[in-house]
Amino acid sequence: MSVRLGFIGTGDLGADHVRRCANIMSGATVSALYNRTQSRAEKVARQFAPQARVTATPEELIESPQVDAVVISSASQTHEELVLKAIQAGKYVFCEKPLATTAEGCERILKTESAIGKRLVQVGFMRVYDQGYLNLKSLVDQKAIGPLLMAHAAHRNPTAGPHYTREMLISETLIHDVNTFHWLLGESFTAAQVLYPRSTSKADAALQDPQLVILETESGVLIDVEVFVNCQFGYDVQCAFIGESGEIRLPEPARATVRRNGQNHTPITMGCKERFETAYDRELQAFVDGVTAGKLTGPDSWAGYVASATADACIRAQKSGQREDIRLIPQPGLYQ
Amino acid sequence: MSVRLGFIGTGDLGADHVRRCANIMSGATVSALYNRTQSRAEKVARQFAPQARVTATPEELIESPQVDAVVISSASQTHEELVLKAIQAGKYVFCEKPLATTAEGCERILKTESAIGKRLVQVGFMRVYDQGYLNLKSLVDQKAIGPLLMAHAAHRNPTAGPHYTREMLISETLIHDVNTFHWLLGESFTAAQVLYPRSTSKADAALQDPQLVILETESGVLIDVEVFVNCQFGYDVQCAFIGESGEIRLPEPARATVRRNGQNHTPITMGCKERFETAYDRELQAFVDGVTAGKLTGPDSWAGYVASATADACIRAQKSGQREDIRLIPQPGLYQ
Amino acid sequence: MSVRLGFIGTGDLGADHVRRCANIMSGATVSALYNRTQSRAEKVARQFAPQARVTATPEELIESPQVDAVVISSASQTHEELVLKAIQAGKYVFCEKPLATTAEGCERILKTESAIGKRLVQVGFMRVYDQGYLNLKSLVDQKAIGPLLMAHAAHRNPTAGPHYTREMLISETLIHDVNTFHWLLGESFTAAQVLYPRSTSKADAALQDPQLVILETESGVLIDVEVFVNCQFGYDVQCAFIGESGEIRLPEPARATVRRNGQNHTPITMGCKERFETAYDRELQAFVDGVTAGKLTGPDSWAGYVASATADACIRAQKSGQREDIRLIPQPGLYQ
Amino acid sequence: MSVRLGFIGTGDLGADHVRRCANIMSGATVSALYNRTQSRAEKVARQFAPQARVTATPEELIESPQVDAVVISSASQTHEELVLKAIQAGKYVFCEKPLATTAEGCERILKTESAIGKRLVQVGFMRVYDQGYLNLKSLVDQKAIGPLLMAHAAHRNPTAGPHYTREMLISETLIHDVNTFHWLLGESFTAAQVLYPRSTSKADAALQDPQLVILETESGVLIDVEVFVNCQFGYDVQCAFIGESGEIRLPEPARATVRRNGQNHTPITMGCKERFETAYDRELQAFVDGVTAGKLTGPDSWAGYVASATADACIRAQKSGQREDIRLIPQPGLYQ
Repeated sequence: MSVRLGFIGTGDLGADHVRRCANIMSGATVSALYNRTQSRAEKVARQFAPQARVTATPEELIESPQVDAVVISSASQTHEELVLKAIQAGKYVFCEKPLATTAEGCERILKTESAIGKRLVQVGFMRVYDQGYLNLKSLVDQKAIGPLLMAHAAHRNPTAGPHYTREMLISETLIHDVNTFHWLLGESFTAAQVLYPRSTSKADAALQDPQLVILETESGVLIDVEVFVNCQFGYDVQCAFIGESGEIRLPEPARATVRRNGQNHTPITMGCKERFETAYDRELQAFVDGVTAGKLTGPDSWAGYVASATADACIRAQKSGQREDIRLIPQPGLYQ
Repeated sequence: MSVRLGFIGTGDLGADHVRRCANIMSGATVSALYNRTQSRAEKVARQFAPQARVTATPEELIESPQVDAVVISSASQTHEELVLKAIQAGKYVFCEKPLATTAEGCERILKTESAIGKRLVQVGFMRVYDQGYLNLKSLVDQKAIGPLLMAHAAHRNPTAGPHYTREMLISETLIHDVNTFHWLLGESFTAAQVLYPRSTSKADAALQDPQLVILETESGVLIDVEVFVNCQFGYDVQCAFIGESGEIRLPEPARATVRRNGQNHTPITMGCKERFETAYDRELQAFVDGVTAGKLTGPDSWAGYVASATADACIRAQKSGQREDIRLIPQPGLYQ
Repeated sequence: MSVRLGFIGTGDLGADHVRRCANIMSGATVSALYNRTQSRAEKVARQFAPQARVTATPEELIESPQVDAVVISSASQTHEELVLKAIQAGKYVFCEKPLATTAEGCERILKTESAIGKRLVQVGFMRVYDQGYLNLKSLVDQKAIGPLLMAHAAHRNPTAGPHYTREMLISETLIHDVNTFHWLLGESFTAAQVLYPRSTSKADAALQDPQLVILETESGVLIDVEVFVNCQFGYDVQCAFIGESGEIRLPEPARATVRRNGQNHTPITMGCKERFETAYDRELQAFVDGVTAGKLTGPDSWAGYVASATADACIRAQKSGQREDIRLIPQPGLYQ
Repeated sequence: MSVRLGFIGTGDLGADHVRRCANIMSGATVSALYNRTQSRAEKVARQFAPQARVTATPEELIESPQVDAVVISSASQTHEELVLKAIQAGKYVFCEKPLATTAEGCERILKTESAIGKRLVQVGFMRVYDQGYLNLKSLVDQKAIGPLLMAHAAHRNPTAGPHYTREMLISETLIHDVNTFHWLLGESFTAAQVLYPRSTSKADAALQDPQLVILETESGVLIDVEVFVNCQFGYDVQCAFIGESGEIRLPEPARATVRRNGQNHTPITMGCKERFETAYDRELQAFVDGVTAGKLTGPDSWAGYVASATADACIRAQKSGQREDIRLIPQPGLYQ
């Protein structure tokens, strides 16, 4: 039996999820689409799923008996309300990050999902499905380098649009690293600090790009993350752990080397979709497999909440210039 | 509409294809299975496709109206006859390499398929779906290093069983490299030579392992391939092209590096399935997509024939110690 | 004409300098040796320079007409006094780092050397002679990645003795990175901060190992340096710059790769001498060449002062847990 | 006591050896120079060794009591006669490769040196002083990958002049690889074969560039060496051994990586001097140290003979298109 998916938001990433479901994934069909600009949803339907219905409202999609599970890729500020509605309709829901724009919004989701008493939500943190990060996770879990002490990371984008704000550098970009470390280490964060290097002339000065974010975890692991959203040279994600007896490094994507003109050349990926293409495929497949099995396994609402609460502290640290404490609500039983 | 696949041969690789179809692929269902030992087919069906039918004969499977296309993973000597039957039944057929155990067998398939006038066959050369080889192919096609002059390659397995013969080193192992170079270069081979280094003490002396196979192509590209099926240290595939202005190298699979005890450690894959897992997924998906579209795009019977005819020459060269010419029949119009 | 060198301090590193002078370098001879324990100096003389004289006091060595230039490798707390005496005797002097144990001590040397009006001092910061760092320097000077914004570095030792204190982690270890960045960037530092990750169980808890030191430069470059003196796995030095258009990384020492047992293995150097052997050869050769030419070119007293003043601020930051300002005296004309 | 060196031939490489002796090496002085065009020798003397004498003939230099040892960098066809004269004068002699232009010439040197009963000759095979090759040698000697079975190598130059002949590709270029494998494996060669790939359009067609040379050793190790003297992209030397339990690879020279414009860039050396600069320093220092100690340790006349006799067979194989046997004279006792 195929899982019938309804897609809310068919912009860039949303349309890509529709394509994925139509052409690549196993056990799922595109049943319905909704987009704020309806013609866009119709266009995507024509291209990938002519048999799918385009609904007039997201509520119509969520409540449709032809929709077994919902995939939300609409604007960040709509996430909370739509996720709540899906939960209340008893539907499984995959929601792109962030789960909500504030930690408080995430708390409302935790509460509602806990009241239902069943995990219905998967958050779109795709890195946990990347082969390289899975490889890191496996080495961390094996204690390949003993207890962990530090991590060094970088999250670099070639360019960010002119609308990109200092807060978005945290809430849209760093949030991936926050979730990744939460998952890799299996623990939460206790404090955050943000340091400002000299800013690149290729970005608006108000953005302050790059930034160095320092996170501390419950067990004392110190993590530094360079976030640089106008680095020009590539979409480049780096991660290394330092433990008591060694170091582990995230591998770079495998690319053919060309020796030419006195140089070895190896390409760097230029975008998120290129870098994490397979991870996107796998995260949505995992959601569908979870729905089919009646048991979701991917990043849950608690992960979404931890990421948002930590991002909020980083934004406070951006403003204060100080080390900011991170305090979380107790983890509800559903997520333990 | 889902493509209903019938699987002939549910041994190691065959069962893996059933799993792939059941759990990973898009647009296909497992409809029927046949295996020489029927209980094995039944076991695989129970595990991955309880709704599928287990047939008493391969003919029954091929002719079943519930089977849209056939996947052959049975013993090499059965391939030719089964492929011919599938073609005669007008069914699309995916056949593991080799297409037939001799060039003559492949020729009979070319003739039958040409008579039907439609490409129905895809041969299981999965490397053409590997991301690294696709990367090489794209650089070759872009003429990134100018006209090609040479290639250096290696095909290494940790161990081969005691039954592994000198001929199998060509017909089961080297045949992958032959097809890969045929596809990468877009041309055929004109001569072959085999040189014998000192043999490893870890293999039967009669096997003569490793061997160095030298191939020449129509345009004069000289290819050397080290084939070493008892190399102990890993399943390791290497490939580099030398052109007029540079060199291109196949990337190694991306793996996390561990620094520990005075050494950097990066793992080497230990088996074919681990090394080419994604390629296997993609080749079968490409077959299903081709069936759905009514147009196959993967390695065709001509590729199967070229590989077999070239392998035959290599086996002659193993025996003669001389450079052996390779002469092909004219390429039928269907494959041009 | 050969430069006649007198060596004060013939411990581990001092004896190595004597060997270097006797066996490897051009244009220099070992003329005299002094060591606090005289028998040690005699032993080193017998081994490498039987014709050299062993003096009873360092002053006798410095003032000897048979000594053209002095090499100081004695204990850190003796450096200032011996350097001052050499300057006052009008002798060129190579002094191991630190130039003095405090910034004030360095200031006294700056004053005395300035009064003489001639550069007589070279400080033993050997990294500026390492091929890899020279490669970095050349790329920085070419503006290969545009204006620099950040640097990430690591300085790791396998183990530090039980006597190793929290301050030594700065004054003996980090001081090399401080000098290296001063030289690479051609600017000084304005502030320092020290962060404490979870401490390794393999070091005394009082040491707090590893540490993350953050330095800011005059132009706003933000540098983070992981210092980990009990990392177990190797003597490992890492350095990367982030500029407006790219990244540059210090290469690892070239070592043969061994593929064995399912792993690629590449060795990591285990000690400072192994890692910087050629750099040590070149720094002392550069000193001798400078003496011969009447013009020193290596790290000068000002570099020694900047390193010490910056290290002092880091030690303050270790204690305060705060960002500490770094204020330097005006650079005397002699060093501009 | 300094070894007084006389230099015969002060062209490109010869002048570089003079500079090396004057500026870099320990224990040697430039005593005399001879060059066919005397003004060239005078110019080199003025630049590096104003106190050295320029002689009118090479014999005058060889016989001068001011010359302890001779360094020959003149044209290849002069080597044999000059080496013989130096031996007869009882002088140590360092001779650039080839020791003589034919195996017979080398045999005359073996005979003369044997008659004197003392090793006086070092041949200029500098690779045995390269850190990377020493690293390989050490791993081979440790049997890090078990008994050796094969080697794959490449010797690439960016361009060769128009005068460069097919024979020179062996006698001037491949000869380095021949000597290197002789030294690494500690055994001689029994047969050679040369294969011709498609030739680059960037070289004269008569040259046939690149070529694949196959060598067999006494124990059956099969070595393939790609020689490509107009490869355009760099001076690139590759070497890998395959043993019963693994593979060892020569490291590439350490160079900083630049990430820029969507590519990782690592430079490739562009010339022999850049690639082997330190090896050249060390080979001449080893010669001087050997002279001082009265015992040479570098590549001896036997190594020179084996390289020339093997090169002769490769040239025969270039012409015959066949596998050519290599037969050596018995190794004289002096070299055992």
